[in-house]
Amino acid sequence: MCGIVGIYNHPEAANLAYLTLHALQHRGQESAGIAVSDGKTIRNYRRMGLVSEIFTEDALTKLPGDKAIGHVRYSTSGESLLKNSQPFCVNYTHGDLAIAHNGNLVNAQKIRSRLETQGSIFQSTMDTEVITHLMAGSREKDLVNILVDALHQVEGAYSLVLLTESCLVAARDPYGWRPLVIGKLDNSYIVASETCALDLIEAEYVREVEPGEIIVFDEKGMHLHKPFAVPQKKALCIFEYIYFARPDSHVFNRDVYEMRKGFGHQLAKENPVEADLVVPIPDSGVPAAIGYSEETGIPFQMGLIRSHYVGRTFIEPSQSIRHFGVKLKLNPVRETLKGKRVVLVDDSIVRGTTSRKIVKMVRDAGAREVHLRISSPPTAWSCYYGIDTPTREELIASSHSVDEIRKFITADSLAYLSEKGLYWFTKKHKEWFCDACFTGDYPVKAEQPKKLKLVQS
Amino acid sequence: MCGIVGIYNHPEAANLAYLTLHALQHRGQESAGIAVSDGKTIRNYRRMGLVSEIFTEDALTKLPGDKAIGHVRYSTSGESLLKNSQPFCVNYTHGDLAIAHNGNLVNAQKIRSRLETQGSIFQSTMDTEVITHLMAGSREKDLVNILVDALHQVEGAYSLVLLTESCLVAARDPYGWRPLVIGKLDNSYIVASETCALDLIEAEYVREVEPGEIIVFDEKGMHLHKPFAVPQKKALCIFEYIYFARPDSHVFNRDVYEMRKGFGHQLAKENPVEADLVVPIPDSGVPAAIGYSEETGIPFQMGLIRSHYVGRTFIEPSQSIRHFGVKLKLNPVRETLKGKRVVLVDDSIVRGTTSRKIVKMVRDAGAREVHLRISSPPTAWSCYYGIDTPTREELIASSHSVDEIRKFITADSLAYLSEKGLYWFTKKHKEWFCDACFTGDYPVKAEQPKKLKLVQS
Amino acid sequence: MCGIVGIYNHPEAANLAYLTLHALQHRGQESAGIAVSDGKTIRNYRRMGLVSEIFTEDALTKLPGDKAIGHVRYSTSGESLLKNSQPFCVNYTHGDLAIAHNGNLVNAQKIRSRLETQGSIFQSTMDTEVITHLMAGSREKDLVNILVDALHQVEGAYSLVLLTESCLVAARDPYGWRPLVIGKLDNSYIVASETCALDLIEAEYVREVEPGEIIVFDEKGMHLHKPFAVPQKKALCIFEYIYFARPDSHVFNRDVYEMRKGFGHQLAKENPVEADLVVPIPDSGVPAAIGYSEETGIPFQMGLIRSHYVGRTFIEPSQSIRHFGVKLKLNPVRETLKGKRVVLVDDSIVRGTTSRKIVKMVRDAGAREVHLRISSPPTAWSCYYGIDTPTREELIASSHSVDEIRKFITADSLAYLSEKGLYWFTKKHKEWFCDACFTGDYPVKAEQPKKLKLVQS
Amino acid sequence: MCGIVGIYNHPEAANLAYLTLHALQHRGQESAGIAVSDGKTIRNYRRMGLVSEIFTEDALTKLPGDKAIGHVRYSTSGESLLKNSQPFCVNYTHGDLAIAHNGNLVNAQKIRSRLETQGSIFQSTMDTEVITHLMAGSREKDLVNILVDALHQVEGAYSLVLLTESCLVAARDPYGWRPLVIGKLDNSYIVASETCALDLIEAEYVREVEPGEIIVFDEKGMHLHKPFAVPQKKALCIFEYIYFARPDSHVFNRDVYEMRKGFGHQLAKENPVEADLVVPIPDSGVPAAIGYSEETGIPFQMGLIRSHYVGRTFIEPSQSIRHFGVKLKLNPVRETLKGKRVVLVDDSIVRGTTSRKIVKMVRDAGAREVHLRISSPPTAWSCYYGIDTPTREELIASSHSVDEIRKFITADSLAYLSEKGLYWFTKKHKEWFCDACFTGDYPVKAEQPKKLKLVQS
Repeated sequence: MCGIVGIYNHPEAANLAYLTLHALQHRGQESAGIAVSDGKTIRNYRRMGLVSEIFTEDALTKLPGDKAIGHVRYSTSGESLLKNSQPFCVNYTHGDLAIAHNGNLVNAQKIRSRLETQGSIFQSTMDTEVITHLMAGSREKDLVNILVDALHQVEGAYSLVLLTESCLVAARDPYGWRPLVIGKLDNSYIVASETCALDLIEAEYVREVEPGEIIVFDEKGMHLHKPFAVPQKKALCIFEYIYFARPDSHVFNRDVYEMRKGFGHQLAKENPVEADLVVPIPDSGVPAAIGYSEETGIPFQMGLIRSHYVGRTFIEPSQSIRHFGVKLKLNPVRETLKGKRVVLVDDSIVRGTTSRKIVKMVRDAGAREVHLRISSPPTAWSCYYGIDTPTREELIASSHSVDEIRKFITADSLAYLSEKGLYWFTKKHKEWFCDACFTGDYPVKAEQPKKLKLVQS
Repeated sequence: MCGIVGIYNHPEAANLAYLTLHALQHRGQESAGIAVSDGKTIRNYRRMGLVSEIFTEDALTKLPGDKAIGHVRYSTSGESLLKNSQPFCVNYTHGDLAIAHNGNLVNAQKIRSRLETQGSIFQSTMDTEVITHLMAGSREKDLVNILVDALHQVEGAYSLVLLTESCLVAARDPYGWRPLVIGKLDNSYIVASETCALDLIEAEYVREVEPGEIIVFDEKGMHLHKPFAVPQKKALCIFEYIYFARPDSHVFNRDVYEMRKGFGHQLAKENPVEADLVVPIPDSGVPAAIGYSEETGIPFQMGLIRSHYVGRTFIEPSQSIRHFGVKLKLNPVRETLKGKRVVLVDDSIVRGTTSRKIVKMVRDAGAREVHLRISSPPTAWSCYYGIDTPTREELIASSHSVDEIRKFITADSLAYLSEKGLYWFTKKHKEWFCDACFTGDYPVKAEQPKKLKLVQS
Repeated sequence: MCGIVGIYNHPEAANLAYLTLHALQHRGQESAGIAVSDGKTIRNYRRMGLVSEIFTEDALTKLPGDKAIGHVRYSTSGESLLKNSQPFCVNYTHGDLAIAHNGNLVNAQKIRSRLETQGSIFQSTMDTEVITHLMAGSREKDLVNILVDALHQVEGAYSLVLLTESCLVAARDPYGWRPLVIGKLDNSYIVASETCALDLIEAEYVREVEPGEIIVFDEKGMHLHKPFAVPQKKALCIFEYIYFARPDSHVFNRDVYEMRKGFGHQLAKENPVEADLVVPIPDSGVPAAIGYSEETGIPFQMGLIRSHYVGRTFIEPSQSIRHFGVKLKLNPVRETLKGKRVVLVDDSIVRGTTSRKIVKMVRDAGAREVHLRISSPPTAWSCYYGIDTPTREELIASSHSVDEIRKFITADSLAYLSEKGLYWFTKKHKEWFCDACFTGDYPVKAEQPKKLKLVQS
Repeated sequence: MCGIVGIYNHPEAANLAYLTLHALQHRGQESAGIAVSDGKTIRNYRRMGLVSEIFTEDALTKLPGDKAIGHVRYSTSGESLLKNSQPFCVNYTHGDLAIAHNGNLVNAQKIRSRLETQGSIFQSTMDTEVITHLMAGSREKDLVNILVDALHQVEGAYSLVLLTESCLVAARDPYGWRPLVIGKLDNSYIVASETCALDLIEAEYVREVEPGEIIVFDEKGMHLHKPFAVPQKKALCIFEYIYFARPDSHVFNRDVYEMRKGFGHQLAKENPVEADLVVPIPDSGVPAAIGYSEETGIPFQMGLIRSHYVGRTFIEPSQSIRHFGVKLKLNPVRETLKGKRVVLVDDSIVRGTTSRKIVKMVRDAGAREVHLRISSPPTAWSCYYGIDTPTREELIASSHSVDEIRKFITADSLAYLSEKGLYWFTKKHKEWFCDACFTGDYPVKAEQPKKLKLVQS
């Protein structure tokens, strides 16, 4: 997963990009980058690591300009390299261009192979680079037409920001998988994946970039383009509500915290249980656990404490000391759990191994019964639109029944939210949302990814 | 504030020190260090930064041995230098010695001046170094007698671990300000500031190191020494319950999470208010807010979301973009707060500036009323025993009434927990606890600190 | 200027590349890189800095394979960036390719513009990248034919090594500006800019790569290709003899040290002077000074001592302390120079400012007379074939007579070697050598370079 | 070996210390440091590495003040640690003090043991620290008296600079092993190990600090103290002339370059040989080789070329590729040496292994005969006064006759300069010089060094 931002017409564009990226850090902790334009030159700075580590005062000082785009990237398997970080910058026949992308194209390999046969040379293994090559090969003259030319050839999920020397462009694919919003700060425009980025810099929320829109910000203002035929359906990612977005963000025109609390209420209605405590698996399980507690009247307790200091590069120093992945992050409050019947609330189960460790941890701390409640349906299908789910084989729900999963994770009971309960807030879910990870109903078919091997460092 | 650990008789002593320090990271984020002994040589490694950043695989590999001590240190004003990090190691007439210290000596300057006049040279500006010089000057022959000789001369708070080539020593001052516990992992002994460190490595909790005890771990086992006259009272730090210790720790023989929830119940009984929501200031305010909600029946909501990515070195990039200190850390959930009467629950108020920003943030997010409830009495006095409170002048409660504070922070109402409510769990509070930060009743008088100036880097 | 190496069929290919690059360090101190192939994957490692700093044991360990190419690069104005370092690696339709280049193409901009119009995207501002794009666009199938296709389109100077997964290729342009030699070490082939690289690893010198040759090293051995029409003349760079190559190298089939001593003899015959001492400007002036001393009988003395510790990044700390550029590097031996008539011998004069400082330094040290003798003709024209001479305007000899230069540098007399004296060793100089820097007779016309501006870091 | 500098009363004291240390880099490449005083605070900055690497612009900016001392240190066996770098700074009863030391005390261990028994704690394993502890324990009140008190207790070699908040002190032991000179730059005083440091900053040479002198620079000027009884003899280190000092320095009131040329003349008179070429082993053998050539009339040639890029940390990447220690540094000029009878001139032979490799290298390059001439007597004894010679056992001349050494190094002939020839310039050598490394006549007896083991990093 990734987060993107764009800043137009602010004297401290790099500083605002830095702050908004920081607010989107939960969308990607592997690498971060900012490209700025001062009207003449595009400068790009990207590194592996966290926003707060990468952007020193010195680094920000070297990024002058009043327009900027930024990107944070999540670690995906095998290709965690600097050359695959963004913004991705190129110098092509129409000048300099920087691009930042959230989402995943499903026909990138096919296009890449075709372009390479025609003599193109690729720098990275990112699908995003395909867009720049399609733009470089376009015979159109105007930036929007060049971009439309390229986007008509790609399929899949993209929320994009592009920077040229003189303008900022925001674009979102017609299905609208990934969120993208517009804000305003005095005379500046801000584009960002989530509204929490606007909140940090006290920018006013204007509206979403709608699926299928291309919006250009230049010296004459904000210009709207709708170059795509109206698609049969939208495919907003339901998983943004369940797990990915920050609870304080307003996504797809709804508040994430309230959505999650609603999942908890539905979950309680569908799957009640006699118990003494409702305990969330922090932090993502907290709103649903509050909802579950409200619906059932069972007291809410923070029976698992989350450490603030779990970094990305923690060393597991020894084979004889195991299970640190969970223990480093969570520790039970023994007195609170001892002798109690505990309802644990989490957002989802992927492989099942972490859930199993947590159930064991809670039982070892003295809980009499451990009931696990999941605020979404079973995750049984991989995502090809930008979320880093593992292969289908690794998803426990792809090959196990709920009761088999319960046995594996050693819970006294296990229940998931139903698909119907998931859509408690709307009747149009099939027309509006992508829930392929639960249903296997993929709105657009995906090619299988191919491994590339040039290693440069 | 600091956290300390000691490991005796484990083949991966440095790894265990590393893990336990990680669990104590909340007690100090400025620097960390580990000293190990392999029976022949003491090796010491200390750096500025977080445990997870400092101890790379390479660094840990270079720390062989079956005995170790470790230390994490909190940033105090002006002397945030590597030479003031711990463990502090010396080579003196009796061999090599490493020491790690939590607490603050109140007569260190006086002793230092005397020793310097006699020809001693100090390497750091830490009070801890005084102990090593007193040990170096002792005419005793046996390690325990040498240590007792030194400790009889110092006054104030100390929980200590010492490492020689062949043994580990734990010591706690007779008043017992700072916690120190003993655990057991198979045939190894673990000493740590808090039980959460034992939990991480699955060590069994044995007991506290009692105030006034010196405990030696050597090849013959664990040896207890009580070299001090029984003091008139103990002085366990009540602030460990209110804020400092982790909620999942068991401190001074009680569970911290339950203590804090109890503060919330008392606070609600003493200071009820008509409201729609109880919202904690995360994370330290959460247990008290749950207690307040339980007592009053007002629904608990996570109306403020805390970022996980606020590091120690965040740059405030611009004067025109203000108040990041709070905004980077907290963001309100607008839909949840809008139009509501909100009870905010926090553990304490220091200068009042942060509380003022949070009250404003909640009101700006749409709250109709904002009532602040503090789960401890007004903090009106500086701590000289190891907590880094600012000078008295900077503590808002030292010079302002509760109503003046309320006006400053712009809350609709403000109430603190009473001193009586604070001790809801005991009748012997005057005999057992130090609450000088609330009452000014200092168990031991402190000298004024002097600034030293040699700058080495 | 640059240095290149290639290794074929040695189990420690990266180690040999490292050592041979170290021996060629004088050809470029700005950046260095090594690309290796293990038969399946090409790995590339390049950094700014010196060979000995860049290639740590860890870095070399991560470069497994039995084939390698390497490159060292000299600092040229304005584009001293990592992306412009080499080897340059690409993944194109025919697989992976790494390339390292010594020399300068004179029609690179024209080709680049044409390719960009057709949709190509360039990663760097190096002329070398043009070759890879021409190769990517070729319709040939075989590597040699693809390369010939590309080289037929470029003009100017190139000594090249290319690495694919399975073979090593060496190529030299038909004019042969830059040297390139082949060596053998047991069953391995070594290609390098100069023979001093072969000496270091005790490889046996086989022969030069002749101008216009392409030589492929693969599992069937060494294959020779001569795809170019025989050119009218060769254009071996005479400046390699005067300054650039190491004196212990054998270049263009002659020993550099003996060539330089010969320049000194000729210089003495043409321009004798009454004097007490012959003093070289170390280190490049030493062989010519010895020749001058031998021819005239005037004693040779090391009257200027060169520091070994002048790095690339020395800070001039203060405006009030001037002329460090020369003083840091050279210091006079006062007793030796005092009261003496001194003949200073240097290889060339570029701007004249350094010579002026040295003449002053020698006079301040007590010399009675200072006579400067230059072991080459006046440098009056810029080089477009790979040597980093400044623009013509900056070359003092482009606009000043010898006597005007003498006045500027404040010498008692000044004399250059004549063009005839320069070629003391051959009668075929016009058919064999490029001396455009002295004569302005450019064998191939050059386009004016254009500045590119994308800044990536 | 080490180099030291002191600056008094210059607004850019740190910059001057930096430049003068750079000029003394040949005296120590392991670590460097500068301590400055601005009249109130002493700041110290020391690191492992070269002067030009350590002192970035940023580092120098953080060293404000008009007084400074500096130090460069040579690598000695086993204790190459930051804590053993200098200047060494302490805060003691009389205030702050920084000290930098060239030389070696011979009774440091004995004093250290005594002080530790009395309760002192040492930070480093350097002999220099003993002086600070003796000063801290002095009952004198005045800085000079305190220093004299300490220096009366130590034995051995020391040239020292000391810095307090308000003054600079230079001191040299009564035997005068190590050089120390005074210069003047406008109103500033400069103290340095060699005159080449004065030359770089264009300071005027004033005079030597005489053996046994203590000189204080303060606001009232320069004050001379001679607190020692006149010793029976001086012990100026003859090896400074032979190898250590830079040839452009004026040491012990004589020019080093001319001294070395004189050694070459004497060597030729004592040990002539029929030959075709005189070739120095660069750079230290150059002046003696010129002298040898002048005396014999045999032509001087630079038949061995020295690389400028041999750093301190070159990796020998492979066991199969041997002898890099010499090959990386030196390469023969084949054409020049082929078929010739060569006289190689070097300054000394330590273990013999390097000489053996060079003789082989010259013979492999085609030399018909190789005659080695050494411009000093056989090095048969270890130095205890500051030069890092290996133990006696490792010195080949301690256990082998000249003919045995000749066989080992495979030369056709070998001859050393005689002790008489060494002193061609004086008749008072026994009263003035220390030549213990040749004769075993140690002016002051030395204790055996003891290993200390605390490892801190």
